[in-house]
Amino acid sequence: MNKKKSQKLYLGWDVGGAHTKLSVIKPNSSSFHIYRCHLWESLDLLSKLVNSVCSKYNKRFIIINVITMSGEMSDIFKSRDQGVKDILNIFKSRGDENYVFSSKKPFFFKPKAITNTKSVSSMNWLATAKFLETCVNNAIAVDIGSTTTDIIIIKNGVCKNMGYDDFSRLSRSELIYTGILRTPLFAVTNQVINSKHRFPVIPEYFSNMSDIYRIMSDIDSRKDYSNSCDHRGKTYMNSLVRFARSLGFDYQPQHERKLKNLAKEIKLIQKSFIMEKIIATMENNFLKKEKINLIGLGIGSFLVREICHKTKLAYKDFNTFYNGNANKLFLPSDIAPAYSISMLLKFKNEQN
Amino acid sequence: MNKKKSQKLYLGWDVGGAHTKLSVIKPNSSSFHIYRCHLWESLDLLSKLVNSVCSKYNKRFIIINVITMSGEMSDIFKSRDQGVKDILNIFKSRGDENYVFSSKKPFFFKPKAITNTKSVSSMNWLATAKFLETCVNNAIAVDIGSTTTDIIIIKNGVCKNMGYDDFSRLSRSELIYTGILRTPLFAVTNQVINSKHRFPVIPEYFSNMSDIYRIMSDIDSRKDYSNSCDHRGKTYMNSLVRFARSLGFDYQPQHERKLKNLAKEIKLIQKSFIMEKIIATMENNFLKKEKINLIGLGIGSFLVREICHKTKLAYKDFNTFYNGNANKLFLPSDIAPAYSISMLLKFKNEQN
Repeated sequence: MNKKKSQKLYLGWDVGGAHTKLSVIKPNSSSFHIYRCHLWESLDLLSKLVNSVCSKYNKRFIIINVITMSGEMSDIFKSRDQGVKDILNIFKSRGDENYVFSSKKPFFFKPKAITNTKSVSSMNWLATAKFLETCVNNAIAVDIGSTTTDIIIIKNGVCKNMGYDDFSRLSRSELIYTGILRTPLFAVTNQVINSKHRFPVIPEYFSNMSDIYRIMSDIDSRKDYSNSCDHRGKTYMNSLVRFARSLGFDYQPQHERKLKNLAKEIKLIQKSFIMEKIIATMENNFLKKEKINLIGLGIGSFLVREICHKTKLAYKDFNTFYNGNANKLFLPSDIAPAYSISMLLKFKNEQN
Repeated sequence: MNKKKSQKLYLGWDVGGAHTKLSVIKPNSSSFHIYRCHLWESLDLLSKLVNSVCSKYNKRFIIINVITMSGEMSDIFKSRDQGVKDILNIFKSRGDENYVFSSKKPFFFKPKAITNTKSVSSMNWLATAKFLETCVNNAIAVDIGSTTTDIIIIKNGVCKNMGYDDFSRLSRSELIYTGILRTPLFAVTNQVINSKHRFPVIPEYFSNMSDIYRIMSDIDSRKDYSNSCDHRGKTYMNSLVRFARSLGFDYQPQHERKLKNLAKEIKLIQKSFIMEKIIATMENNFLKKEKINLIGLGIGSFLVREICHKTKLAYKDFNTFYNGNANKLFLPSDIAPAYSISMLLKFKNEQN
């Protein structure tokens, strides 16, 4: 028993507002998870999740938690500062070893050593960037998640992003508030045009982008971790009903073809929007003749792949930086920041 | 007791998805109410409300309910058709006299006579139009509510709107999905520019237009019947905190002036958007030399007044069509469809 307990287990946590992502790195295997954990409903949900995961492993392993987050901006917290503190306190209240990912060198700190929470707040994108610095020379990585898209620039092996906090990243388009699941349709466009007809999109949360990608058969339903807007099932048919509701009419079978065309248009609007941002980032950071890879991450990585196909850019899958068994529902690319911090801390500890 | 019970009381109900508006017309007095009643939470809320209001009056009066709605589009219902039926059933299950407002002549029907629910679905705007036909000759009425704006055209005493159902009204801009309370900021604009700085608006429901108008001191807090996004109080200070959250930063006192300027910009974007629609409606329906009034209705009628000031159009308050005591929190202009159906049915019954 004691012998077993000498083995270290790295748990990489990326605590978001709606979902918490977990990377479990055992000595000889690993697994990756996404848990629904709506912080705005109750912070207890996160406590329970952390306790249940840690209890599962702490008999056999020395647990080392590594934490990054963006959930501190949830409006359950009075401020981001308070959010970081409350989230870290959940981990501190347990007896395990904890490290927090910070934008300050040497990047990993004990929670009590964090004096300025700004270095922790929404730095999950930087965790991915720091990991990518160890793998690639010139690349743009695009992490398309449920509601946000992060653009990471790696040049000569160094992260070149200009913005650090959410606010500066937003204004530089390094953080784009668009995603493929929970983003409402009306955040993508206020109208859609098909066969010269204009369809205004109602700004009520009747449907979201997961309905569009479900209609387009683009997402694996097992990986679709979002809630549906009307709390009805996540079927193709229910998505058509919700989509029609956003356009102001009741779904009838004869609408199917029209709705599929309109869904295609909305997908195109979102994809073009992301593509423009990628191209602008590329032009601002690289010369035309420089060979760079576009790395797709997140549940929306298929869009990055499609953009590469259209722009003739070289696509590289983030999972090529992972040597383990790829026959799993979730892979590192689905939870890149959590995976990155767990691997970076493991490398660091093993080097020492 | 019996003598009293011979007096008729008209209850005009406008059942929305989030709020139910009520016009109470007694023989010698009247009152107007807005109740929070989120249909998407439970239809029981509406049952309870209807029962509590009717129980209050049915000992002293013969109650005549008159019903119009837009709440049938709430996603608690499988379809609008089902929504109309379920809402009407709540009234039918009581013993009072019920009439439903329909787009078909003679406009008021017993619920059981409604065979095609499309003539009832979201016809509350038409109720206001039918009432206005009795009061004005040439006018454009603009009803700015919590999430929607209705534009009604009266020419030579007749309603000239081309769209009838939500879908056709949306595509003709006779129904505009923008309002001054519950409409999310990101439905109004995805960015705001101030002093040459671009501020992207985060498409999370962190704040809504009520925060903007609270910061601008435009709304009477007693009439502001919306919920705040973070469930914290509806104070000026909390609105600044929520607004900053939508822009990606934590509020600090030194941000106040900047946020006030940005709120002003967002108000201007929404006001200009509504103004463009009004001007287009005017140009499509009236000659330049024709004298028409712009009638402001709804909790956002102050915007119509401001638009008149800017465009030098004649403003007319809907409450000038009401002869009762004006010293009340809510007046007919705040609940125009409910007021209109209660008055129209009363006129009709008294003529017979």
